[in-house]
Amino acid sequence: MTTPEFIAGNKDAIRQFIDKFDVFLIDCDGVLWSGDHLFPGAVDSLELLRKKGKQVVFVTNNSTKSRQDYQKKLEGMGIPASAEEVFGSSYSAAIYISRILSQSHPQLKEKKKVFVVGEAGIETELASEGIPYLGGTDPAYRRDVTPEDYKLMAAGDPKAIDPEVGVVLMGLDFHFNYLKMCYAYQYIRRGAVFLATNMDSTLPSAGSFFPGAGSISAPLIKMLGGKEPMAFGKPNQAMMDAIEGKFKFDRSKVCMVGDRADTDIRFGIEGNLGGTLGVLTGVSTEKDFLEGDTRPAYYVNALSDLLEGA
Amino acid sequence: MTTPEFIAGNKDAIRQFIDKFDVFLIDCDGVLWSGDHLFPGAVDSLELLRKKGKQVVFVTNNSTKSRQDYQKKLEGMGIPASAEEVFGSSYSAAIYISRILSQSHPQLKEKKKVFVVGEAGIETELASEGIPYLGGTDPAYRRDVTPEDYKLMAAGDPKAIDPEVGVVLMGLDFHFNYLKMCYAYQYIRRGAVFLATNMDSTLPSAGSFFPGAGSISAPLIKMLGGKEPMAFGKPNQAMMDAIEGKFKFDRSKVCMVGDRADTDIRFGIEGNLGGTLGVLTGVSTEKDFLEGDTRPAYYVNALSDLLEGA
Repeated sequence: MTTPEFIAGNKDAIRQFIDKFDVFLIDCDGVLWSGDHLFPGAVDSLELLRKKGKQVVFVTNNSTKSRQDYQKKLEGMGIPASAEEVFGSSYSAAIYISRILSQSHPQLKEKKKVFVVGEAGIETELASEGIPYLGGTDPAYRRDVTPEDYKLMAAGDPKAIDPEVGVVLMGLDFHFNYLKMCYAYQYIRRGAVFLATNMDSTLPSAGSFFPGAGSISAPLIKMLGGKEPMAFGKPNQAMMDAIEGKFKFDRSKVCMVGDRADTDIRFGIEGNLGGTLGVLTGVSTEKDFLEGDTRPAYYVNALSDLLEGA
Repeated sequence: MTTPEFIAGNKDAIRQFIDKFDVFLIDCDGVLWSGDHLFPGAVDSLELLRKKGKQVVFVTNNSTKSRQDYQKKLEGMGIPASAEEVFGSSYSAAIYISRILSQSHPQLKEKKKVFVVGEAGIETELASEGIPYLGGTDPAYRRDVTPEDYKLMAAGDPKAIDPEVGVVLMGLDFHFNYLKMCYAYQYIRRGAVFLATNMDSTLPSAGSFFPGAGSISAPLIKMLGGKEPMAFGKPNQAMMDAIEGKFKFDRSKVCMVGDRADTDIRFGIEGNLGGTLGVLTGVSTEKDFLEGDTRPAYYVNALSDLLEGA
């Protein structure tokens, strides 16, 4: 296994590193900020890459926000960005449904609706691809289950079960409940394709961890006897294929930048990118990068170390 | 592997079968009734066993009902029963916490409260053993999560996190939501023992399937990196130990009666009971009983076949 090259403090090494690549895929939380805290030098580092003519793409597993929402978040943190530079797991799922799944699953011509378990980000991205959906943030699904629900669902009554649903897409849902679990399961039992925006088991927040998108799909996987959904977030390569499909780059000229060896760095390595850069401002430690199973080609203390290459 | 003996229609074989045992552990759904439909002869069959001096115990994985609730359900179906004859997964969990866990986990002297994810049946049984609890049916937990919740939980603030919680007990919860997932995880992260009433992935209803207690624990197992809770329903032997602890029987004189090979019959076999009786009025088929991995010692078409032994 290769030994990651530590390039911080070495002006020449940093310049050579930057020169090698045309595109930088950048994970946000743990690289640009932690929670609400923007890292010093992050904005200038991105500005430097842009000045050098590099394409920057913000890659996030966060399914609750659309690209527009995320662009606003970036701007709120003082990072100029366009929605076109943002690539999220919800957008990735929407592209996959509209451009790939519709080809491989002809039954989706008749059953073209998506039952959504998740927040507005998923809905916005499905709408941007012209995909009809139900569930999601509809308040009709934020209630207790009734005996009538069981009967209607079991009977496949159109008052409960929409015969045009061909896909169930699950992401992080802060309004997850028993009724949504019932619906997702009933649609999958009736043949709907089971998709998940991403499988992150936890969501870091306020210095602790809370349920992530992967824990929202978990009850369904249990009910389906272990059947896993197709998932789009890093490190799943469906996400990389979707990014490539949009930006049409030469993978050998692309570098993935991230703080987590098991998701970000793995995503870049399994995607056969030209390089990976680990930063030590997030989850993985120097020991993880140097001795772990998944090692970046390069690493620095912080993204701002790239400023030495100005 | 033994070949199950089909004893229906053979008066002598049925009499010999009944005479072999002092105690009959009886699964209810699929044996006595299906949904709201009582099987013909079920009441008389139980009456026959009682006339012959047998102890009858109704064994159910249903965690949403207390023994009293279940006794009312039995009476509502026309089956005379006392609450003492009912053994449910919630009662089993309550007994385990009060009589066994308190011995093996001395920290529970200080942390004696149980955070409940589930319905009233669990609360009633915990109360019957004098165990303090929170969560459960408290409407304060039936709401959306707020940014303030994250902060208080992450900080372990006593406004959110009760320092006396030493156990998280999860069962079927028709009011399951994201906030409860957060609390359960935060308590387990802080050292609470992770228990589940039962792990049934689905709940049969209205001729279809809906999420069961096992799908309620699934998000937590995912968040905990695969760590499973200790669980009490059939076929887990913690349930058998609890039943034996209460009824003080000789296992060789006990027969488990059920419709499901993988739960009921397995429960009896792994519990080293004197015998198991499969019935064909529920989930498992004759082929399952004759060719499956888990085979009953005896089987009949329906419980009412026992009436031939009158």
